[in-house]
Amino acid sequence: MSSAACIFCKIIKGEIPSMKIFESEKTFAFLDIGPLSRGHSLVIPKFHGVKLHDVPDDQLSEVLMVAKKIAVAQGLVDYNILQNNGRAAHQMVDHVHFHVIPKPNAEEGLGIEWPQQKADMGELGKLLEEIKSKM
Amino acid sequence: MSSAACIFCKIIKGEIPSMKIFESEKTFAFLDIGPLSRGHSLVIPKFHGVKLHDVPDDQLSEVLMVAKKIAVAQGLVDYNILQNNGRAAHQMVDHVHFHVIPKPNAEEGLGIEWPQQKADMGELGKLLEEIKSKM
Repeated sequence: MSSAACIFCKIIKGEIPSMKIFESEKTFAFLDIGPLSRGHSLVIPKFHGVKLHDVPDDQLSEVLMVAKKIAVAQGLVDYNILQNNGRAAHQMVDHVHFHVIPKPNAEEGLGIEWPQQKADMGELGKLLEEIKSKM
Repeated sequence: MSSAACIFCKIIKGEIPSMKIFESEKTFAFLDIGPLSRGHSLVIPKFHGVKLHDVPDDQLSEVLMVAKKIAVAQGLVDYNILQNNGRAAHQMVDHVHFHVIPKPNAEEGLGIEWPQQKADMGELGKLLEEIKSKM
């Protein structure tokens, strides 16, 4: 399944050129041309889904292996794997993509803010039962 | 393979209690008790590896499916999947873990800084050949 309007679907089809690193039947990977650091890469399922929950399980099966291969090929030590869902969560292209972002130093790579909350254990326990009942 | 000193290995074994959402032969998931937002969860391979590239491919095969299940069970709309490798990349526990972090609003959830670089296409092309030769 692909979307005619989707830039990543066009890249997969070769209608738009890309810095292709890897391709298999269901997975595609390429260098990000607006990188956060040298070697910033994207791994995508070929199946067009906007968000993670839109992509069937079997279409996701190679994604992490390919991300790992890219990290190993570059000899990365510190790096982030990031997949954003929704504009509010910093998703910029509406086709699921996993960023492999090298973190060579404090300035380059992904910047993370961690607004940790104080959890109410009673509330967490209730939430847990709620989630479990829907799994 | 597990590590005696690892807090996540102890959680997997039940030696430390956790808010367990899911467990299978090779995967474990639980609520983060220091959440960035309500429903912040962790999905981990049971295999003890410090970084993504330390975990064998077959031990990673269920991770994204379980993350997806957790997102769907909570009816998440905007959310981030994040896996950090190394202190510099904000990894706090030395056992591979994937965060599922709901992004309900601008204040809660993961904060992202995106220090995008201007790429030199010639340099990128060289890097691409270098990476491809090692894949």
